[in-house]
Amino acid sequence: MTRIWVINPNTTASMTATIERCARAVVAPDTSVTGVTSECGPSSIESHYDEAMSVPGLLQLVARGEREGVDGYVITCFGDPGLDAARELAQGPVIGIAEAAMHTASHLGRGFSVVTTLARTMGRAADLAEHYGMQRFCRGIHACEIPVLDLETDPVARKVVTEACHDAIEADGSDVVVLGCAGMADMCAQISAELGVPVVDGVSAATLTVQSLVAMGLRTSERGEFAAPPAKDYTLGG
Amino acid sequence: MTRIWVINPNTTASMTATIERCARAVVAPDTSVTGVTSECGPSSIESHYDEAMSVPGLLQLVARGEREGVDGYVITCFGDPGLDAARELAQGPVIGIAEAAMHTASHLGRGFSVVTTLARTMGRAADLAEHYGMQRFCRGIHACEIPVLDLETDPVARKVVTEACHDAIEADGSDVVVLGCAGMADMCAQISAELGVPVVDGVSAATLTVQSLVAMGLRTSERGEFAAPPAKDYTLGG
Amino acid sequence: MTRIWVINPNTTASMTATIERCARAVVAPDTSVTGVTSECGPSSIESHYDEAMSVPGLLQLVARGEREGVDGYVITCFGDPGLDAARELAQGPVIGIAEAAMHTASHLGRGFSVVTTLARTMGRAADLAEHYGMQRFCRGIHACEIPVLDLETDPVARKVVTEACHDAIEADGSDVVVLGCAGMADMCAQISAELGVPVVDGVSAATLTVQSLVAMGLRTSERGEFAAPPAKDYTLGG
Amino acid sequence: MTRIWVINPNTTASMTATIERCARAVVAPDTSVTGVTSECGPSSIESHYDEAMSVPGLLQLVARGEREGVDGYVITCFGDPGLDAARELAQGPVIGIAEAAMHTASHLGRGFSVVTTLARTMGRAADLAEHYGMQRFCRGIHACEIPVLDLETDPVARKVVTEACHDAIEADGSDVVVLGCAGMADMCAQISAELGVPVVDGVSAATLTVQSLVAMGLRTSERGEFAAPPAKDYTLGG
Amino acid sequence: MTRIWVINPNTTASMTATIERCARAVVAPDTSVTGVTSECGPSSIESHYDEAMSVPGLLQLVARGEREGVDGYVITCFGDPGLDAARELAQGPVIGIAEAAMHTASHLGRGFSVVTTLARTMGRAADLAEHYGMQRFCRGIHACEIPVLDLETDPVARKVVTEACHDAIEADGSDVVVLGCAGMADMCAQISAELGVPVVDGVSAATLTVQSLVAMGLRTSERGEFAAPPAKDYTLGG
Amino acid sequence: MTRIWVINPNTTASMTATIERCARAVVAPDTSVTGVTSECGPSSIESHYDEAMSVPGLLQLVARGEREGVDGYVITCFGDPGLDAARELAQGPVIGIAEAAMHTASHLGRGFSVVTTLARTMGRAADLAEHYGMQRFCRGIHACEIPVLDLETDPVARKVVTEACHDAIEADGSDVVVLGCAGMADMCAQISAELGVPVVDGVSAATLTVQSLVAMGLRTSERGEFAAPPAKDYTLGG
Repeated sequence: MTRIWVINPNTTASMTATIERCARAVVAPDTSVTGVTSECGPSSIESHYDEAMSVPGLLQLVARGEREGVDGYVITCFGDPGLDAARELAQGPVIGIAEAAMHTASHLGRGFSVVTTLARTMGRAADLAEHYGMQRFCRGIHACEIPVLDLETDPVARKVVTEACHDAIEADGSDVVVLGCAGMADMCAQISAELGVPVVDGVSAATLTVQSLVAMGLRTSERGEFAAPPAKDYTLGG
Repeated sequence: MTRIWVINPNTTASMTATIERCARAVVAPDTSVTGVTSECGPSSIESHYDEAMSVPGLLQLVARGEREGVDGYVITCFGDPGLDAARELAQGPVIGIAEAAMHTASHLGRGFSVVTTLARTMGRAADLAEHYGMQRFCRGIHACEIPVLDLETDPVARKVVTEACHDAIEADGSDVVVLGCAGMADMCAQISAELGVPVVDGVSAATLTVQSLVAMGLRTSERGEFAAPPAKDYTLGG
Repeated sequence: MTRIWVINPNTTASMTATIERCARAVVAPDTSVTGVTSECGPSSIESHYDEAMSVPGLLQLVARGEREGVDGYVITCFGDPGLDAARELAQGPVIGIAEAAMHTASHLGRGFSVVTTLARTMGRAADLAEHYGMQRFCRGIHACEIPVLDLETDPVARKVVTEACHDAIEADGSDVVVLGCAGMADMCAQISAELGVPVVDGVSAATLTVQSLVAMGLRTSERGEFAAPPAKDYTLGG
Repeated sequence: MTRIWVINPNTTASMTATIERCARAVVAPDTSVTGVTSECGPSSIESHYDEAMSVPGLLQLVARGEREGVDGYVITCFGDPGLDAARELAQGPVIGIAEAAMHTASHLGRGFSVVTTLARTMGRAADLAEHYGMQRFCRGIHACEIPVLDLETDPVARKVVTEACHDAIEADGSDVVVLGCAGMADMCAQISAELGVPVVDGVSAATLTVQSLVAMGLRTSERGEFAAPPAKDYTLGG
Repeated sequence: MTRIWVINPNTTASMTATIERCARAVVAPDTSVTGVTSECGPSSIESHYDEAMSVPGLLQLVARGEREGVDGYVITCFGDPGLDAARELAQGPVIGIAEAAMHTASHLGRGFSVVTTLARTMGRAADLAEHYGMQRFCRGIHACEIPVLDLETDPVARKVVTEACHDAIEADGSDVVVLGCAGMADMCAQISAELGVPVVDGVSAATLTVQSLVAMGLRTSERGEFAAPPAKDYTLGG
Repeated sequence: MTRIWVINPNTTASMTATIERCARAVVAPDTSVTGVTSECGPSSIESHYDEAMSVPGLLQLVARGEREGVDGYVITCFGDPGLDAARELAQGPVIGIAEAAMHTASHLGRGFSVVTTLARTMGRAADLAEHYGMQRFCRGIHACEIPVLDLETDPVARKVVTEACHDAIEADGSDVVVLGCAGMADMCAQISAELGVPVVDGVSAATLTVQSLVAMGLRTSERGEFAAPPAKDYTLGG
């Protein structure tokens, strides 16, 4: 049995529930998926500030997972916060949803468009596309301007996101869509059906990437910078 | 049940057997893997010429797979021959072993070294690293100068490959190794154990990538260049 | 006397005739040009599948040319199919028309636009621009959506291509046009006259590149990956 | 009077004192420099984990500085932790020492070598070089393997760092050195004198960059992603 | 006292006066700025030809400055003519206004737009953006089509430039503007006030960069290509 | 009859004679080649300063050539000085020897090594490789440390250059050599014979590139930045 934790780095438990459900829907029979919610930090991540402040809570969960023998982790925010630090803490693989979604999309077409929430997060998505080597496949990053938590409650959210996806592939000449927020995970199949192109949800993609790495017995390398961090004096915050 | 064909684009059936065994070892219980051997072309692929001449036989197998309802395909030569053409023919995903191995390695460390067979194939590997966006992770490509088919029979092959891997990570400052030939697939675990770094076999990685894509219901986009090729008059060779 | 073969990798002899005429119009008095038509494969090349399937026929012709002492070869399809493999087979230089056209255009202005036939071939042109280092000069790739063979017969073909060229340089801010199909070779001078910018035909450009390389006594290097391919068992297709 | 805070994101006050002294030595008569020490987080930053955990304390200081009307900020860790988030919080400019040092070095020669502390931080330095567009000037990143806090106490530290700088410019063919740790700030002049090449300390460089930006009346743009972060519910850590 | 020469490489003294005034407005109390005008060459620089012809006059002034013990130099044409040659001649730092403006803009936002004079100079600006590593921040280069010398006399010049800046940031999605001509230096503050984004004038930026380098005791490296040029026979022009 | 001027931008007539001889050896029967020597500037070009100072003399010759109806020009210094400016002045094509040599080398192998004169010119060669898109083929730039004019007189010059070429291809894993100085033009065939790899002389390559462009009726585009420079007041130097 492969045990995977999908970690929601914001503190909104209802979002974790959706994420967990989407991840469970795609894994193999012998993979268990547990959604875990950060216990400190922002209720949603929509700025560099939110992202930075979400990382300590996320790393706390990874440390706990290590004590419990978890096989691998998914970070379910499209900014992939704390990914490098989490890789230092964990023995098994850690995958971000932006990372997995972009890699996955690159297998399916000539180029993809990302549709994300607020325009102010587009720069981070572009940084990640470059960091993962996916810039050459990423033809555009677009915002639908729906705040993260409204994706759950706004009755027209899916319609707006679908339209943004449609406009994005037209404008970019793309043949694949990447959804740029974990909160869009459960919209994936319907948008794909409506637009007639593959639409990639990073939560599913990252969970399956972890499952595959564990199946191959592959862990983050300990040779070099992802070795366990050196012990150190830490002053607690107030 | 997900049905995956791992296609050996050379005509050496014993190599297909090894490949099939390695792929089967990692898939989920509800995935079936079938190794298929090309029926025309070279007995091994060690030049641009060999690679070009292997593609028609490979595409014949993809066409047959489509008639039999196969869910997805792996191309098991590290030059990823015929990948774009195969994507036009197949409805389900098609993944090359170089593609999958490099993507996988990028999740495990800061940079990987490729160890391949003959030095004359290093240029193709470099082209692919760039094509997949993996150039930034690929710190070096190295040849062990063992011909492909000798990997099966040469009693010191594994030892030579292991040494080449060791030297590569030292020279490149890498923390991950990618094996640059399907014929090395069954050496993977032992080399990793000896060197203490993750070693990635593209056959396993590509098979699991196909499995994951099928689990998510994702197929190659038909919007744009990977749509089915236009019908055309073809003159048969003599 | 320098002997150059311009090889049409599709099986349409009328297209070879046009190509041969365009090449002959620009060479030096002591250069002989022979157009040769592939004897097996597709009647035109408009997909990755067509391109892959055209290569064995093309390589057969190169092998024949070597037996006859040909000095150099041009591959007259804008996808430059089989170029690396042909370089392994031939002693003299082998040049693709996309390669030569893009290099030539880079000498004439700040940036060029490519106008090709079907949109589905644009990705291949982009790959080649990068492969040759010409991406920085290539400001856009545009399709006129005329199938290759219709270029010969469609009475409005030249008008449509000219309009596409006009729109391309306006949209891209380019100062040079590259024609993205050998079938457009004979339109080159008229389009240039109408638009007032240099228009590059790859057939002429590649033929003259071969002529120049032969004049300098330069051949493809045999040190490294373009050495003759290793001997090997080949199974014939059925 | 321009007021600049140089923020030490680790909790070691003696290091802040050195940093403050170096910054004060270079500013104009009408610029005041205050060194401030983080009140929570690691005593030194030597891993992605340390870096991530240092950011909340750093951002707390920026928020305090804003209440006190500080004109601009320097982040004095070569990983430039929290830079984007700090730019969202602050109205005046925020500059990282890696950013400033690399920019400065690019004005002085053809290429620079970075000499940093532990090898495990080299990847982060490489990421930053790319992020700032300085990759083309950065010819190599080298570690002297002295832990950050030992720079203050180890009697041979300066000698070891100087040798590492010497070896780096020889190996890389560089003509400029960048010191890759704020703890090396006070070694700068002596190493330069011994090696006969410009040696750049990021603390000085960043402080002067802030001074210059303030002199020009330039602040971080509020159009787009560096606008103040949206208000949000935050759960405090335990 | 730091002595800086801001060298106007065209022969129009009124333009030098404006440049000098803008530079003086931002320097520290102990920095002296002198504007110097080239004594031979074009009255303005609007082509590669003008730029090439301006360099000998510029280098003459640098040589004179060296004899007078000047601490550093600014080249006040946005093509940064003769920068590498000037660095060979001068002991202190030499900075171009395009170089300084682009570096400065990269500290202030995600991406900048350049607004220059004639469209024919856009290619040079793009070359420089790449050369300095600033291509990744430069989202667009735009021309207002006002000749350089008309910037001083055309009553609507500032209005036209302001509109061009406005349109540029909208079209490019930029958050910072770079003014692409020294003749726009005195428009900087007003355009910034009108558009609500940071607007960078290279004259101020370059002067402060020189001031900062001198404050740190940093000079162009003499190790390698910027060492003094080898002595040589020179034939004078007629 | 195609008339080509090969312009030596230094003032050493004996070097022009060699260059002219090499160019004449490769052109077609109906092409005439004239070597012309700059009448003002440095006797050889070995620094950015020399290069900048050589340009006015070079442009004078281009202007004269235009009055005499010359069809195209070659600039025979490996720094390709004044190329963009010359393109503005001339109607026919202008090609630099670095440009032509690198393009030519890219047709012959996987990667080339440049062997130049003094190490201080290596940076310029690297800039040009990037500027022409040839960086991906350029595996290394090496200096033999023979001053330009000593190439003619030093009895061991050819031996030293040959050894540098040998070492370069070994160190770089290259399969082609580019000679990085016009003064090496007459060594080309012998070095190639000794090393067994293609060796490219830019003088021949550039002359044939001009010949080919003229044969195709192609001139530098006048749409955009290479149009004739705007008329302007010029102050003569003293």
